[in-house]
Amino acid sequence: MNFQRTVFFVSDRTGITAEHVGKTLLTQFPDVNFRKRSLPFIDTVEKAGAARLEINNTALQEGRRPIVLSTLINEDTRAEIATADALCLDLFAGFISRLESELGLESSHALGLSHGMGNEVAYQIRMDAVNYTVSHDDGVSTDTYDRADVILVGVSRTGKTPTCIYLGMQYGIFAANYPLTPDDFVDHALPKPLVPYRAKLYGLTIHPERLTKIRSERRPGSRYASLENCRFETRAGETLLRQEHISILDTTTKSVEEIAISILYGAGLSKRIES
Amino acid sequence: MNFQRTVFFVSDRTGITAEHVGKTLLTQFPDVNFRKRSLPFIDTVEKAGAARLEINNTALQEGRRPIVLSTLINEDTRAEIATADALCLDLFAGFISRLESELGLESSHALGLSHGMGNEVAYQIRMDAVNYTVSHDDGVSTDTYDRADVILVGVSRTGKTPTCIYLGMQYGIFAANYPLTPDDFVDHALPKPLVPYRAKLYGLTIHPERLTKIRSERRPGSRYASLENCRFETRAGETLLRQEHISILDTTTKSVEEIAISILYGAGLSKRIES
Repeated sequence: MNFQRTVFFVSDRTGITAEHVGKTLLTQFPDVNFRKRSLPFIDTVEKAGAARLEINNTALQEGRRPIVLSTLINEDTRAEIATADALCLDLFAGFISRLESELGLESSHALGLSHGMGNEVAYQIRMDAVNYTVSHDDGVSTDTYDRADVILVGVSRTGKTPTCIYLGMQYGIFAANYPLTPDDFVDHALPKPLVPYRAKLYGLTIHPERLTKIRSERRPGSRYASLENCRFETRAGETLLRQEHISILDTTTKSVEEIAISILYGAGLSKRIES
Repeated sequence: MNFQRTVFFVSDRTGITAEHVGKTLLTQFPDVNFRKRSLPFIDTVEKAGAARLEINNTALQEGRRPIVLSTLINEDTRAEIATADALCLDLFAGFISRLESELGLESSHALGLSHGMGNEVAYQIRMDAVNYTVSHDDGVSTDTYDRADVILVGVSRTGKTPTCIYLGMQYGIFAANYPLTPDDFVDHALPKPLVPYRAKLYGLTIHPERLTKIRSERRPGSRYASLENCRFETRAGETLLRQEHISILDTTTKSVEEIAISILYGAGLSKRIES
């Protein structure tokens, strides 16, 4: 049995959706070594023909047919790909027909709008939210916390910045962050700049063993990265946040997406745009 | 005929994939007003039972069954949701069985790893790449351009920052950016800090009519936002980039994802991590 297999992600747009779904599907077969190849922006029959040729050539060279995961709305391009020498799985095809009969309507067969500009207003909100996070990263200008939808609080390297950016990029949420440093633990009270914004605060924490690994990548051998200091900071941070009745999320085993979604629902934030 | 319909996105993880696919599917029915409700982290049969109850209640209240788009790997939770009074479309179910027979293997039926931490190394790379972009945004510290995989060049508000962040978040790519300002057009030559990094440069441009709208949101009535100045800056920027034989992408009608993917393939960048 041969465990290597080539997978093509074919899409009329960016291919992001096909890759997302495909990745999850393929993790269900951990013994197979999948060679992945993306073919985005296949939005004409001509380009689909070139893609089909590449898929067929791969089948010929490897002596076994590839797997094609596609997200093609247009029926002509989909038909072109479907004739390739491959196991062709289109993520939309089956669902569109089932939705058509459920809704009693014909689908528009138009190119997907997701990952497109959508409308200019939504684009503007995303841009503004991301720019907001970038320009207010790490508490540099707390005077703009009043514009924030949420303010993430936690010690250094708990995932605040990437989470803020993800919330801005996907949902247009204005997310700021405030890094807790040892100085903040002296008074056993909420840092002054945060006091007026208590209702917007959401705490992040992390296991000290994981934190010391992350910080060691950045500053190996430093006191900042030492397990002893990481234990002190996380414990002091958690104590402070609990004492102030601020929700705390443990990010140790979570991805940025999982942290973001947990905060979105945990804090009851409203998406400013559709993701 | 009633054109309102409730759609549930049910997932054992973040639900991001279900929402991505669902959004594209639903845009095919522009006449229907879909009310969207996300139910993420449905990872036990008990939670699936509660979700089923909510779906059934909605069916009862609205007098028509909702649509359920799910990404559930676990068969027990999927079976629980499948009994709900709804059109249940699971994005994985059909594909897993077809992949099983194609590969001659049984799937692991384990929870999806996508949007999970995956492995710690990948997580670290993403964090580093995003932090890199944030700390080097807008050309503030050009001395670290040697670490960059790509440096985006363009006048203000062409989409450089969100694109850099997207490249970091999704692919672990170290993306820096350099904003071209009117000062850079005086010498008709590449700005000095960029000269050693010519091979890493990728240009962004935008239609002046769109740019004036974007800039007017930020600084209404300013010279910076005026159509005349936007015309001058985009033309001067494009002339400079072309003269230096740097690839130029027009971002006017593109989403951040489309810009990022176009640069990824256009510049032949290697993903440092799987998206």
